[in-house]
Amino acid sequence: MIVVLGASGYVGQAYAACLRAKGVPFVGLSRSDVDYTKQETLTAFLKETRPEFLINAAGYTGKPNVDACEKDKANCLQGNAVLPGAVRAACTAAAIPWGHVSSGCIFSGTRPDGQGFSETDAPNFSFRQNNCSFYSGTKALGEEVLGYGVTGADETGVPQWNFLEGEPNGYIWRLRIPFDNKDNPRNYLTKLMRYESLLDATNSLSQLGEFVRATLECWEKRVPAGIYNVTNPGSISTHEVVALIEETGVCRKKFQFFKDEADFMRSAAKTPRSNCVLRTDKLRDAGIRMSEVHDAIRQALREWAR
Amino acid sequence: MIVVLGASGYVGQAYAACLRAKGVPFVGLSRSDVDYTKQETLTAFLKETRPEFLINAAGYTGKPNVDACEKDKANCLQGNAVLPGAVRAACTAAAIPWGHVSSGCIFSGTRPDGQGFSETDAPNFSFRQNNCSFYSGTKALGEEVLGYGVTGADETGVPQWNFLEGEPNGYIWRLRIPFDNKDNPRNYLTKLMRYESLLDATNSLSQLGEFVRATLECWEKRVPAGIYNVTNPGSISTHEVVALIEETGVCRKKFQFFKDEADFMRSAAKTPRSNCVLRTDKLRDAGIRMSEVHDAIRQALREWAR
Repeated sequence: MIVVLGASGYVGQAYAACLRAKGVPFVGLSRSDVDYTKQETLTAFLKETRPEFLINAAGYTGKPNVDACEKDKANCLQGNAVLPGAVRAACTAAAIPWGHVSSGCIFSGTRPDGQGFSETDAPNFSFRQNNCSFYSGTKALGEEVLGYGVTGADETGVPQWNFLEGEPNGYIWRLRIPFDNKDNPRNYLTKLMRYESLLDATNSLSQLGEFVRATLECWEKRVPAGIYNVTNPGSISTHEVVALIEETGVCRKKFQFFKDEADFMRSAAKTPRSNCVLRTDKLRDAGIRMSEVHDAIRQALREWAR
Repeated sequence: MIVVLGASGYVGQAYAACLRAKGVPFVGLSRSDVDYTKQETLTAFLKETRPEFLINAAGYTGKPNVDACEKDKANCLQGNAVLPGAVRAACTAAAIPWGHVSSGCIFSGTRPDGQGFSETDAPNFSFRQNNCSFYSGTKALGEEVLGYGVTGADETGVPQWNFLEGEPNGYIWRLRIPFDNKDNPRNYLTKLMRYESLLDATNSLSQLGEFVRATLECWEKRVPAGIYNVTNPGSISTHEVVALIEETGVCRKKFQFFKDEADFMRSAAKTPRSNCVLRTDKLRDAGIRMSEVHDAIRQALREWAR
């Protein structure tokens, strides 16, 4: 049996659907049944029920978007930085392996050498860099709470991010701007179609179903514990996604773009957004495949369901 | 009736002693009675009992010292950054005025103009500056969670720290290296006498009993809500404190000093320490007096009790 925390959320529901489809028994733990935010409560539950694996898909994202986190900082910190620590401690105490859904939004842009960020590059969109939204700050702090920190820099000067306490004992899976073929306010494609104006930026993205399948494969194949960027290989610009929306005829509106990021910040956003490219070779080298990002977007649009 | 959170801690016990001596009725809330870390639970308790004031003296400090916080990041964040937010939200919901014990350890050194830091200077020893211990990071984040943030810089270039949401509705009292006349592992004077070697640094300090009395006066006199540095006026170096220890004969050992901060970090510390000077004119101008720091140290040593 697998335990899923946050099973009623956008990501958690995708886990529930995938596990159901695979016929894997699981429990979607709700806080009203077991207050898993309390380390001792979760530990006792895990010791009693002895699941084979735990997935932490709980987190605080802000609704309708990340701006909302600026108004609810305590709960945002609790859900994204404190809870992962409690989950890890409880899983360690009960000897249950675990995986945590982190986010690629702790990065901005690309590395100085033009490459995407790898799992050993330190977050550059975080409290530590003093350039981030409160949401991104709490997600990066969540990885610190899970034992990661800066350990020097590589030859290009990029600070390196490593587990500081010996060997990592769980998975950190970085999701990045989830989308799939179902119209939903959390779906990136829905958001693009609903926003009045769009910001052109180049990003790595995660097809939600592929993300869930890939992360479960990490556990099934017993790939080494640690951080994995779980995004569709490659990167794509907002203009390219819009071209695919137009090409597939899913939405026939005339898309408007902000002039630039300054225009976007002035007119639409309260807090800076992460736009970034992540490398995915670690996941691929572990034998786990995801489809190329343009293909994944095209596929979702072809199967678009309202 | 006044509610004190964290009444069993070093600071909380001093509140309990002071309120008892004043004959002010109070309840030292314990988490096993009322889980005040849950916003709804605390709100319900406050609505039912309707105290006239709430003091949050709960916090996570690390034992025996701040290095321990590096090993328990989730609980440190919970106690110092999430809990203050829950307390403020519950007090707001129940319309109960409140005061929170923050820390001066979110600063390092002095301002560029050589002055101590005032309440409107932004913390310079914090996650945002990426130079701090995890403990200091969480305390500065706690003030962010309570509604403060950077709003530009003053004429000397020091970033300014202001309440971002209208008018502040509670007190933030900054304590700094507490001491008193009672031998205790949390007492700065005890620490100095027990450490093998000392780091020479100039600091503002808070005589614990005076801190508690001054903060209660804030409430009694209804001084305006907001941040107050509650330290004994002036600053003092470790060498000066040691000279007073020797002068009063409280401890006759030969005190050793580290060569410099690098030597200290190499041989004794896991994480950087805050050493800083705070201005105290805001408290004084509000009509609340504390004794000069050398006088306060001398007094504590004269009345030293093992």
